[in-house]
Amino acid sequence: MKARLGGEEGKHKFVLKTPKGTRDYGPKQMAIRERVFIAIITCFKRHGAEVIDTPVFELKETLTGKYGEDSKLIYDLKDQGGELLSLRYDLTVPFARYLAMNKITNIKRYHIAKVYRRDNPAMTRGRYREFYQCDFDIAGQFDPMIPDAECLKIVHEILSDLQLGDFLIKVNDRRILDGMFAVCGVPDSKFRTICSSVDKLDKMPWEEVRSEMVGEKGLSPEAADRIGEYVQLHGGMDLIEQLLQDPKLSQNKLAKEGLGDMKLLFEYLTLFGIAGKVSFDLSLARGLDYYTGVIYEAVLLQQENDHGEESVSVGSVAGGGRYDGLVGMFDPKGRKVPCVGVSIGIERIFSILEHRMKASGEKVRTTETQVMVATPQKHLLSARLKLISELWDAGIKAEMMYRKDPKLLKQLQYCEDTGIPLVAIIGEQELRDGVVKLRDVATREEVRMSLQQVSEVFPKSSWSQKALGFPGAPLKSCIVDLADKCSFLLAL
Amino acid sequence: MKARLGGEEGKHKFVLKTPKGTRDYGPKQMAIRERVFIAIITCFKRHGAEVIDTPVFELKETLTGKYGEDSKLIYDLKDQGGELLSLRYDLTVPFARYLAMNKITNIKRYHIAKVYRRDNPAMTRGRYREFYQCDFDIAGQFDPMIPDAECLKIVHEILSDLQLGDFLIKVNDRRILDGMFAVCGVPDSKFRTICSSVDKLDKMPWEEVRSEMVGEKGLSPEAADRIGEYVQLHGGMDLIEQLLQDPKLSQNKLAKEGLGDMKLLFEYLTLFGIAGKVSFDLSLARGLDYYTGVIYEAVLLQQENDHGEESVSVGSVAGGGRYDGLVGMFDPKGRKVPCVGVSIGIERIFSILEHRMKASGEKVRTTETQVMVATPQKHLLSARLKLISELWDAGIKAEMMYRKDPKLLKQLQYCEDTGIPLVAIIGEQELRDGVVKLRDVATREEVRMSLQQVSEVFPKSSWSQKALGFPGAPLKSCIVDLADKCSFLLAL
Repeated sequence: MKARLGGEEGKHKFVLKTPKGTRDYGPKQMAIRERVFIAIITCFKRHGAEVIDTPVFELKETLTGKYGEDSKLIYDLKDQGGELLSLRYDLTVPFARYLAMNKITNIKRYHIAKVYRRDNPAMTRGRYREFYQCDFDIAGQFDPMIPDAECLKIVHEILSDLQLGDFLIKVNDRRILDGMFAVCGVPDSKFRTICSSVDKLDKMPWEEVRSEMVGEKGLSPEAADRIGEYVQLHGGMDLIEQLLQDPKLSQNKLAKEGLGDMKLLFEYLTLFGIAGKVSFDLSLARGLDYYTGVIYEAVLLQQENDHGEESVSVGSVAGGGRYDGLVGMFDPKGRKVPCVGVSIGIERIFSILEHRMKASGEKVRTTETQVMVATPQKHLLSARLKLISELWDAGIKAEMMYRKDPKLLKQLQYCEDTGIPLVAIIGEQELRDGVVKLRDVATREEVRMSLQQVSEVFPKSSWSQKALGFPGAPLKSCIVDLADKCSFLLAL
Repeated sequence: MKARLGGEEGKHKFVLKTPKGTRDYGPKQMAIRERVFIAIITCFKRHGAEVIDTPVFELKETLTGKYGEDSKLIYDLKDQGGELLSLRYDLTVPFARYLAMNKITNIKRYHIAKVYRRDNPAMTRGRYREFYQCDFDIAGQFDPMIPDAECLKIVHEILSDLQLGDFLIKVNDRRILDGMFAVCGVPDSKFRTICSSVDKLDKMPWEEVRSEMVGEKGLSPEAADRIGEYVQLHGGMDLIEQLLQDPKLSQNKLAKEGLGDMKLLFEYLTLFGIAGKVSFDLSLARGLDYYTGVIYEAVLLQQENDHGEESVSVGSVAGGGRYDGLVGMFDPKGRKVPCVGVSIGIERIFSILEHRMKASGEKVRTTETQVMVATPQKHLLSARLKLISELWDAGIKAEMMYRKDPKLLKQLQYCEDTGIPLVAIIGEQELRDGVVKLRDVATREEVRMSLQQVSEVFPKSSWSQKALGFPGAPLKSCIVDLADKCSFLLAL
């Protein structure tokens, strides 16, 4: 990340690095990133989502009062005159602002963009200050738990699809938590701060969390101990039924509502065939203030490591929940738009895949070039420029060396290094005969084609129209065309 | 952009808006944006480019001294302890920083990302404070003008492809400008500031630029008048030949080098078949400090407007040039990496396409959903959830309404509104018979299929693997599968 100029400190004008907690993505990393994005976007589109985008910064006041104790991690912009701005901290608050501003009461959308948190980075574990979130949210007044169940289905599909190993989706409900706090004797005013303490249970043992509750936050030891009993519970439909019979919890209106919805959720998850990967877990709290109902978090389960080496340690890779009050905070009349959503935290997923790619030694192509245009003798730059121009115009992905007179060996070597499968060679003899020699880089087989044939092989297709014809229609692969014409190329 | 809460000012807590000079992209705008991106990325990949990404902010000192008079437009982050940071102003300086930091001397890459300028926004003309740049650059020591010509070819391909109407690519060379300044009697120390004045010629008449040169910048009136004669010249190979014979200019070493390379460039552009759209224009200066050789800018030519109404007025839509010194500014030993590149300014292109889309009344689909899962009677939510889950798992893009008992008419109406072509209906009769009714929304034709047939029509394909198989392999369209099985669906 850092390349100190020269060698000694103090001696040099500046340090060549990216800001703390950030990194560049080189071509190899981008190839992995593209794969992950395609898997995620494919899933979001499969569920019928539209896509939106919002600015990287918001008015500071838009973010104020939405993140509880995490607000201190927001990046502010310098006051250079004009509005006070902050970098977005997540994509959820900008989404709520967007809905309120445009009076939208009904939308299913995804949004993939970078968010910013002045957190302590732990970059080897995929924790950055600048990182992508991939959010899918459903806004609108619907029948209970149907959109909520779909969000969990999406997490399940994406994590299965990316083949990251075994995972577990923990679910809970803010109403169950609040009901639990009430029956344990937590004063109303302490609900949110005690909730923040519970949220730390995935990083600290109960004893430490308990001493934070009692010592720092002034909760009675008895209340803390009662909470301690609940938060160790986790299970499925059985636990829901058990708590619906719980003498204290079943008397609490909020908890009862939450448990009723949790039961419905598990029924839907069973129909989706994914209940087995979902655990109702009373220790799940989620840090953010704005959740009002069901909350969830997906964690990868530690993978077995044959070699006893360190495996990449990652925490949660997805999380979300229901936030029915957030849009109303932006509406002048407080009109609510119920929302539920999920955010995929892909930096950690990148870390795992990057690590795996390095370990496997798998070679990744970072370009899609199909044909290298090469000349075997000197003074043939014009011929190369003309031919490559025709290929580009026909929609063929083609490269040439930026040299007047490159050696043929160097041109072939470039193909081997970068994985280009075909070479179109145009030499003095070919120019005289009006042909082009096509060569298969792997097998070294060659075929001579007339310029007429070449123009048939590489037709002036309306690639531009196809490229514009999103969604769906991909570019016709010229390699397939070639294979049709030259039987030896069929294997490509 | 702005929705003041309530009605009167002062009375309300906050204003619901995006920051000055920024905007949200809704689903319709995103559909246009996706098309433009695909056209541009397709072109960059066709030319064999890799892709990189860098953080949205850089150390403040990384940007210092790179942008001349424009530096005042850089957004700084607030000093919250730690490093001093600024939002990136373009993608070129971060690219140069990336090359120097990673000691890369040879790369062809593209980078598509947002950049930030505290400029006066003119949003109706597509000028924003947050906007996308799509950059393609070639770094490395190569034979003269070959990569430079490819950059112009790329601009030509993208602008032709997007069908934005007629355009012109203006080219000049910093060495020709500097030589011109020298022979006109501009002191060395005033080269950059006089260059900035010349850069304003696309927005101001010569008289105003002249008075800035003489009045504000202290140039002699005679020198200014001599510049005035040169900067009105534009043409092609003829003009290059004429200036190579110019008694003053031809004696200047820099100008002669620049003119020699310009001649070579036009030879290559002729081989590419695009010289007709390129104009050598001595008034083109480009604002940024870091250019060292050829510079260019593409402008859309004012379109004819049949109705005499205002047409969308846009300025330059692409620009770039050669910057051989920039990477060296980041290298401790000052090692240079010659670079040339182009940046496509797509906000203006969006503006035009958005305007055109609105004017044509063309209906844009904002989702890709293939099948709506519907029920015609009550109490069939479970059946819908089971069926849609199977469709999703088979890679089919499917939606359902988030209601326990929606009316069939509402479900069909939703398809009409959003353009979903097929409905999979599962009712009491279908459940009894073990079939699903597939309905063509447009023609209202229906076919009943056994669940067995449905599972054949929608096979549990390894869509996930296909989705991951980027680049190239798209998802197999399930509509095609359907069409194979049900002849009435062939038209879809």
